[in-house]
Amino acid sequence: MVMWSICKVKRGPGAEWRPVPVPRIQRDEILIRVERASICGSDLAIYGWRSWAPGRLRLPLIFGHEVCGTVVEAGSATRGLSPGDFVSAESHIYCGLCYQCQNGMRHVCRNLKILGVDVPGGFAEFTAIPARCAWKHAHPRHRELGSLWEPFGNAVYATLAEEVGGKRVAVFGLGPQGLFAVGVARASGAERVIGVESVPFRKRLAKRMGADLVLDPRQENLVQGVRQACGGDGADAVLEMSGNPRAIEAGLKSVRSGGRFTAFGIPEDRVRLDYAEDIVFKGIRIYGIAGREIFNTWYRVESLLKRVDIRPVITHQFRMKDFRKAFAVLSSKEKRCGKVMLVP
Amino acid sequence: MVMWSICKVKRGPGAEWRPVPVPRIQRDEILIRVERASICGSDLAIYGWRSWAPGRLRLPLIFGHEVCGTVVEAGSATRGLSPGDFVSAESHIYCGLCYQCQNGMRHVCRNLKILGVDVPGGFAEFTAIPARCAWKHAHPRHRELGSLWEPFGNAVYATLAEEVGGKRVAVFGLGPQGLFAVGVARASGAERVIGVESVPFRKRLAKRMGADLVLDPRQENLVQGVRQACGGDGADAVLEMSGNPRAIEAGLKSVRSGGRFTAFGIPEDRVRLDYAEDIVFKGIRIYGIAGREIFNTWYRVESLLKRVDIRPVITHQFRMKDFRKAFAVLSSKEKRCGKVMLVP
Amino acid sequence: MVMWSICKVKRGPGAEWRPVPVPRIQRDEILIRVERASICGSDLAIYGWRSWAPGRLRLPLIFGHEVCGTVVEAGSATRGLSPGDFVSAESHIYCGLCYQCQNGMRHVCRNLKILGVDVPGGFAEFTAIPARCAWKHAHPRHRELGSLWEPFGNAVYATLAEEVGGKRVAVFGLGPQGLFAVGVARASGAERVIGVESVPFRKRLAKRMGADLVLDPRQENLVQGVRQACGGDGADAVLEMSGNPRAIEAGLKSVRSGGRFTAFGIPEDRVRLDYAEDIVFKGIRIYGIAGREIFNTWYRVESLLKRVDIRPVITHQFRMKDFRKAFAVLSSKEKRCGKVMLVP
Amino acid sequence: MVMWSICKVKRGPGAEWRPVPVPRIQRDEILIRVERASICGSDLAIYGWRSWAPGRLRLPLIFGHEVCGTVVEAGSATRGLSPGDFVSAESHIYCGLCYQCQNGMRHVCRNLKILGVDVPGGFAEFTAIPARCAWKHAHPRHRELGSLWEPFGNAVYATLAEEVGGKRVAVFGLGPQGLFAVGVARASGAERVIGVESVPFRKRLAKRMGADLVLDPRQENLVQGVRQACGGDGADAVLEMSGNPRAIEAGLKSVRSGGRFTAFGIPEDRVRLDYAEDIVFKGIRIYGIAGREIFNTWYRVESLLKRVDIRPVITHQFRMKDFRKAFAVLSSKEKRCGKVMLVP
Repeated sequence: MVMWSICKVKRGPGAEWRPVPVPRIQRDEILIRVERASICGSDLAIYGWRSWAPGRLRLPLIFGHEVCGTVVEAGSATRGLSPGDFVSAESHIYCGLCYQCQNGMRHVCRNLKILGVDVPGGFAEFTAIPARCAWKHAHPRHRELGSLWEPFGNAVYATLAEEVGGKRVAVFGLGPQGLFAVGVARASGAERVIGVESVPFRKRLAKRMGADLVLDPRQENLVQGVRQACGGDGADAVLEMSGNPRAIEAGLKSVRSGGRFTAFGIPEDRVRLDYAEDIVFKGIRIYGIAGREIFNTWYRVESLLKRVDIRPVITHQFRMKDFRKAFAVLSSKEKRCGKVMLVP
Repeated sequence: MVMWSICKVKRGPGAEWRPVPVPRIQRDEILIRVERASICGSDLAIYGWRSWAPGRLRLPLIFGHEVCGTVVEAGSATRGLSPGDFVSAESHIYCGLCYQCQNGMRHVCRNLKILGVDVPGGFAEFTAIPARCAWKHAHPRHRELGSLWEPFGNAVYATLAEEVGGKRVAVFGLGPQGLFAVGVARASGAERVIGVESVPFRKRLAKRMGADLVLDPRQENLVQGVRQACGGDGADAVLEMSGNPRAIEAGLKSVRSGGRFTAFGIPEDRVRLDYAEDIVFKGIRIYGIAGREIFNTWYRVESLLKRVDIRPVITHQFRMKDFRKAFAVLSSKEKRCGKVMLVP
Repeated sequence: MVMWSICKVKRGPGAEWRPVPVPRIQRDEILIRVERASICGSDLAIYGWRSWAPGRLRLPLIFGHEVCGTVVEAGSATRGLSPGDFVSAESHIYCGLCYQCQNGMRHVCRNLKILGVDVPGGFAEFTAIPARCAWKHAHPRHRELGSLWEPFGNAVYATLAEEVGGKRVAVFGLGPQGLFAVGVARASGAERVIGVESVPFRKRLAKRMGADLVLDPRQENLVQGVRQACGGDGADAVLEMSGNPRAIEAGLKSVRSGGRFTAFGIPEDRVRLDYAEDIVFKGIRIYGIAGREIFNTWYRVESLLKRVDIRPVITHQFRMKDFRKAFAVLSSKEKRCGKVMLVP
Repeated sequence: MVMWSICKVKRGPGAEWRPVPVPRIQRDEILIRVERASICGSDLAIYGWRSWAPGRLRLPLIFGHEVCGTVVEAGSATRGLSPGDFVSAESHIYCGLCYQCQNGMRHVCRNLKILGVDVPGGFAEFTAIPARCAWKHAHPRHRELGSLWEPFGNAVYATLAEEVGGKRVAVFGLGPQGLFAVGVARASGAERVIGVESVPFRKRLAKRMGADLVLDPRQENLVQGVRQACGGDGADAVLEMSGNPRAIEAGLKSVRSGGRFTAFGIPEDRVRLDYAEDIVFKGIRIYGIAGREIFNTWYRVESLLKRVDIRPVITHQFRMKDFRKAFAVLSSKEKRCGKVMLVP
């Protein structure tokens, strides 16, 4: 059987829409008919052949890892999943046997493979994943949002690495993940949510997601501005969602003594930090965040999505075969977009 | 009344032995007759007029902040302290009223002053501190070690920022603080304690403090060596006690995915890090450590000092007036020294 | 100088409205002109001379411990407080010097004294407290609610002993503390808030505070009802706010395996529990809650009171001299009341 | 194929040594040739037909759940296990799919089955368990102790529910689990370890395991004795390992304000507690402990067994077919025994 897919065929920018065989599943896998997929920042690196992508990918590769759909086949060694179930994919394919997996850290499994990066992904009509990486929706609502459980889970884990109730939270970078983080912080009882972003379109979205104030990173005295907005002493928690080296630095300077910094955004290069002043002397805690806790975070997602309306963040939807338009929107200078969805 | 003191008088290297008035205490202060003082790395920066010292100090200043002695006078607003009590000084003079102080983070008080840095210190016959910064020894044993409660407390807080029981711990930099950390990790049930240090004298001390293995930072494949010594996957916890930029980098690379990194040593400059690979993707936690938890850590110190013999770390003792010899030992290239004590 | 006060003079029910000298403050104390006081369940035990009261009180005693007002005098050893400041009293007068006080557990200080129980309290025109037990309102809003910081803080600490975000929370007993707890859980992102209460008036208040559902404790299969309302498996967190032995038992049975139980309500007698089934086999955690964390909880209160409107819980207000009417309302069988306020 | 087993055939005390078919494994199971089994307190209830046993067991049943041995067959759906591997059994057979399993609480799985209680167990020549419940020994040392990983894990989880470093720990009940707990607390840096036990044989064993002091529960003023041994204020942590109602009560009274109580021992009946005084007012935390964290605790076990010598606790060993002698030793009044081992 043959299906259509977005396939990265050659080293260099771009990808192709091409027919490939439908995956044959292993005993412990399920086959999913994809209903929605969405595009992540890391898909942009793959498509554009930038950053970590050239050093890691083995081509040809079907990419895409934010994906949901209906189970059409379940391997003989799977439990608890049947054809017809609506599932979202946990993109971090963990082994289940290593130290990290056995100690509540499956998201940083020693033998981790990422869907659509290390193994064929979900920008296709069908995709196969291990059953253990499926989140079965008990009561599917909003099936059209199903591929967003994964990236929203990122934001949830990044935001709630420590409790935010009563805290002043600053979110640097208001792409889709930053916007989600704003919503999560707001719904979790944050005292104040400050955004930092230069793109006007995204600033407006942040207000809709619940930001009290959005500062422009290009303003003079940004750090001073964040501190003032947080009562003078700095933010209790800074969530760095952009990966921009200047934002990382300003973010660290914006945390109050004894506060928390979440490192989520991915800089393209090494970063220079004022380690003594900003980390040691202030006695802060830094959390590197990759993926989501499996499946603790998914339960938080399930609950939060009842109270956080993420639909404003979804700004575009395309047929999967029109993926070039989708990537064009995401690569545009104006960044007049939030999350972009693909429909097979 | 007049006392002798080590006084930093002029900008530039060195200090002077000079008579000054005995401090007059405030209502909430106590006057201590100093019995022992010890020299910290930051005292070296002051003496040598390096790093952060020129930018922060206002001269003249009696420096020194690791200090113990007998209370000779207690202000009218103090409670629980009387002449004759044997006390060690908490060098972080906290206000007690700010957000940090009211929330269990007095060591990073918003209005923090450091004894011997921001206010006159303990390299003198007498010193005055707020009563709230005194640790009263209920049953003084080893009075001659009393000034070490403070730096040992640093190491305790740095090491036990997360539980180390059953963990593989790597300690980068085996100066006195690193040596203390080795002893603390060992006494707290660490599975394995690996040191990283180049000075042969200190390597030997580390073995006496309980290190299973000491690696030389100049060896090829240091990171690989630490990982192998930790079972292949990296250290569960890395304690960076040196402040050396290369150690910071190697330390971060030595942590296993999902592990912990303690940032304690103070680099002189900004530091370049592989933030994406070493912090974000590995999902680690970083703890900046300044001072000690007041007074949680002190209770841990009290208990640990019954099981950790720190006397091997004390390699030299001088009369306070011979402080130049003490600083010469500490500044020597061979670093054939651990902690250096001063006796008034 | 003389002031009016509600004074417990004789062993037995009741109290008297009588003039007494205005307290003279110690060096570390402040004198407060009381603006509002409110009546706690423990004041009912004192007034009615029930339960623990006869065994603990030494008469005569001015009682009352939920109190706010304006500083009119500050002792010479106090810092950070001046006449004119608006403060609420932390009723747990901690020593500041014991193990508990030095380790972040001032609310269970070894030498604890309770305002209005062990020392003269706040049902009077003036009251004196140690400065360290004053919460100074930086920006007083709603001064008429100032005495509620203390009991609301109880509810905050009881509710947030563990995070409630995404959790199903059952609150047993919807007196003022239970009602506050409902509001706190709701504002902190609880997935579902279930109340258990028989008094119709209080059931209605619970809905106003955000309860999704209120069950009647007299219904058959109460435990089954709570479990069903929580998705079948039991509540993630049960907050037992009533002290009723049957509620304690049903509450423990309502927690899911691995869940949390908060023990806040005070039973008059010893309680019989199914320790093996309900505690050990289910692997739950129980938190005994007395008072509030000082001052961590107060900061949470400050933030939560911006989002939780507690005014519906305040059902009555009386002149302080009419205290007999207030106690009559609280002792009535119908319990058509929430919090009752007194104005000097 | 046929094997010998200890089989509970009839309701009432006793069991039989009888041949039964070797289990046939499911796809996700492994078959283990048993090398050692050991007898748990709950096996005594089964053998003696006491307490919870009559209400739960369906006969006939091979009981026994502390077991180790060599894999002789691995089902087709298993991963990471091969014939020849030496494994210990996790007796808590968790489903892996429920809320608890997905959130780091597999030991209280909603669909939990206990080996040798709800499904056929390990007092036999062979036993079958799901592969996910096998702990594979990477480097088997002391194979003859392999069945003790499970009960020692109980003690580890019970003891380390909160950190014990620097803490004063009181262990009530010094059967094998209490003795293990003493060893774990000692090796984890406890400041002081106090035992409470009346059997002289076990008191002596406790000293060998590292107890500083063992008190007799029959002494007058037991609680006073524990408190004094803990510096006057009570124990930082009480581990109740006996299930004796009087020990539970004395244990709760022995905890200091703000301390921790672990509920591990299983009383046969409901227990009456001074809930107000001992739980609420003191603000303690109670942890119900069943099983072990899967597999976090197993890693702690692996590390601790290098430092804690548990061999003194093993006092008897019998051929499996002589099981009646083993149960006689365990049921004797003098309790001159620790752990009793069975060899097929």
